[in-house]
Amino acid sequence: MATDAEKLAKLSMDEGNGSDDVVNPWNVSSSSQKGVDYDKLVNKFGSSKIDDALLKKFEEVTGKPVHHLLRRGIFFSHREMDQILEIVKKGKDETVKEGKLKTVEEGKLKTVEKGTPFYLYTGRGPSSEAMHLGHLIPFIFTKWLQDTFDVPLVIQMTDDEKYLWKGIPLEETNRLAHENAKDIIACGFDIDKTFIFSDIENISSSQEFYKHMCQIQKYVTFNQVKGIFGFTESDCIGKISFPAIQATPSFSGAFPKIFSGKKDIPCLIPCAIDQDPYFRMTRDVAPRLGFKKPALLHSTFFPALQGAQSKMSASDPNTSIFLTDTDKQIKDKINKYAYSGGGSTVEEHKEKGGDCSVDVAFQYMKFFSEDDDRLAQIEKDYSSGELLTGHLKKELIGVLQKLVGEHRERRAKVTDELVNQFMTPRKLKYDY
Amino acid sequence: MATDAEKLAKLSMDEGNGSDDVVNPWNVSSSSQKGVDYDKLVNKFGSSKIDDALLKKFEEVTGKPVHHLLRRGIFFSHREMDQILEIVKKGKDETVKEGKLKTVEEGKLKTVEKGTPFYLYTGRGPSSEAMHLGHLIPFIFTKWLQDTFDVPLVIQMTDDEKYLWKGIPLEETNRLAHENAKDIIACGFDIDKTFIFSDIENISSSQEFYKHMCQIQKYVTFNQVKGIFGFTESDCIGKISFPAIQATPSFSGAFPKIFSGKKDIPCLIPCAIDQDPYFRMTRDVAPRLGFKKPALLHSTFFPALQGAQSKMSASDPNTSIFLTDTDKQIKDKINKYAYSGGGSTVEEHKEKGGDCSVDVAFQYMKFFSEDDDRLAQIEKDYSSGELLTGHLKKELIGVLQKLVGEHRERRAKVTDELVNQFMTPRKLKYDY
Repeated sequence: MATDAEKLAKLSMDEGNGSDDVVNPWNVSSSSQKGVDYDKLVNKFGSSKIDDALLKKFEEVTGKPVHHLLRRGIFFSHREMDQILEIVKKGKDETVKEGKLKTVEEGKLKTVEKGTPFYLYTGRGPSSEAMHLGHLIPFIFTKWLQDTFDVPLVIQMTDDEKYLWKGIPLEETNRLAHENAKDIIACGFDIDKTFIFSDIENISSSQEFYKHMCQIQKYVTFNQVKGIFGFTESDCIGKISFPAIQATPSFSGAFPKIFSGKKDIPCLIPCAIDQDPYFRMTRDVAPRLGFKKPALLHSTFFPALQGAQSKMSASDPNTSIFLTDTDKQIKDKINKYAYSGGGSTVEEHKEKGGDCSVDVAFQYMKFFSEDDDRLAQIEKDYSSGELLTGHLKKELIGVLQKLVGEHRERRAKVTDELVNQFMTPRKLKYDY
Repeated sequence: MATDAEKLAKLSMDEGNGSDDVVNPWNVSSSSQKGVDYDKLVNKFGSSKIDDALLKKFEEVTGKPVHHLLRRGIFFSHREMDQILEIVKKGKDETVKEGKLKTVEEGKLKTVEKGTPFYLYTGRGPSSEAMHLGHLIPFIFTKWLQDTFDVPLVIQMTDDEKYLWKGIPLEETNRLAHENAKDIIACGFDIDKTFIFSDIENISSSQEFYKHMCQIQKYVTFNQVKGIFGFTESDCIGKISFPAIQATPSFSGAFPKIFSGKKDIPCLIPCAIDQDPYFRMTRDVAPRLGFKKPALLHSTFFPALQGAQSKMSASDPNTSIFLTDTDKQIKDKINKYAYSGGGSTVEEHKEKGGDCSVDVAFQYMKFFSEDDDRLAQIEKDYSSGELLTGHLKKELIGVLQKLVGEHRERRAKVTDELVNQFMTPRKLKYDY
């Protein structure tokens, strides 16, 4: 699953109004320095904006504040998240009413007596060993969802896709799937609730998974994938049929060891919005197979150091902060490359103020600083010109050094053995 | 693999010259009572006719007469069979020269010291429990090839294909794969030399098989399968990518348990010529993957009781002789339905003679009677009018009752346990 936030706003000379944004799983580009126009994208894709009412419902049902990635509008769009919350609420009400819930841990929803109201599915396309900050976003958020709702999670590593699209040998994409799994595990996922799988390994070891693939492939035509993904007649048949493989984990029947063969457990998919085409197709085909449509939560894209219009590039390490960067590298990259929305001189900055909407240091703070009050203060002071770019960058450097440093420590503890445990098809802690 | 000889000459009012024959894996039709014009087909497909020189080489290399299905032109076309014979001959010469061959069983070629010069691959599309006489042809011939050359054989049951094309549920096509395997095993294949597999089971249990599928799918475009198979944009992506699945067993690397990971063991595929499009595609893609092109032996189609222009139909049991038919059913069907090339009255027959080229009883004798002298006598006497249709049919009934009766006996001895043994991925008796 190419949730790669690296597919970002392509550098363009045209400072247009964002009307010619391109957003699909293999290319994201915008003509505006502010990046993709997400309001227009929601209209185009036919998803729904996450509004205050939904956030309120989120907090009502979970009994705790929503994650900062939600409340800051980074996860900004959804499909039927309201229905997922409704199912959770209903299950919770019934459980409380019938007195089934023995203990309620503070701010944490307990599972309904048997099974779970839904499960989570996300993924990554393992095209490189070097994962960067942007790659962490869906996983940080997914971990919060897993902790909050106490549900199973399946994580697909599309090693076959990376062979088909990038020509990286299958052995290498498969190795990268295992390497990347270490970074994912380091996000803190619970081994009793999480199954990470490589497509190559899982398709060749699960009959139910392959059968679900076949079923989806039977009900999707070339015309449909042409319309949704822009495939042409010159594309290889591997690419043309791949969308069915990314669709498959949306259906609980594909994981009999986890769901005991139950085909009707609802699925919620947190992902960057460039992955939505896969799931539009999935939602289209679901009713024809008698399956439930997956629900979705979409995030915006994580900007390159050079700004939302630039592209993060694996071949240019100075376009992003990698999870392997040292404290010094983080400091140097932020100071040297992070696009500034501040004035060109201190005098100009103090007079006119900075533009937070394009300032990469401020954007990164929005993704990673957990302190709402501090962020509001920064926005105010930077906009007014009181806070200088250098000081903002210094604060960001501290936040990122801590984040990356802690990640580095956790990752160092992830053994090959632990990766294998996460990647072994098995029953999780839930009974269905 | 839809080797179904049932896809036969579509009934047509037009007694044309065969120029508008249609031959592809899903449809075979001809406008002539004699059936498909095979000379034209060889030209169109670009294969080679099996000529006397090749048959002579066959006998030289194997040291025994060729099978009657070869010498009677039922297997009539090939691709690079001469090269397979050359490899066998070379291996044999070297073995004899170096004195490696300790014992030579009469008329039977011994394996080269290590490995085999090639392996065999054929298959069946399990769309129905009822296999008929025509379905036996490739297997009878393949068994002879296996006995003659002492090589491994892989048999693909395309249960996924039958779901995609016919909409039979996957559970049912998979069950039919096991049922049909019983009839195939009853042909006498050696369990130490033969691996039968269902696609559903094998793809979901062999990483190397799935990787080979991916590799083929990467190097075949929609344009190519459109040109070869006539797929359209309205076809589902499952059909569009399926040809890679039928191509995969042509490469020894897809069976690491059998070939110890060796990717360069040549493959020989005996099949009805309607399957050739799959292997044209396979031969096209092979060099791009660094694999050897498979060689082929093509058979003509087995005629329906109503004649070569008619279609055998699973829904009309009177169009063919099933392997489950009783002696009485065989007798009644032949007498009642077998299209006669004889005169309309005894007088007319005696005066003008019969036409063996359209007479179904004679054609069936050509497929199944092993006695060349008797067949030549029948052809002479039937053509001259001396032998009457009734007598010819009576003789055929005897031949078929014996054939089907013996098959029935052997099939009754095939247990589910034996089927499972044949279908277990495993090393065969050969070391590579």
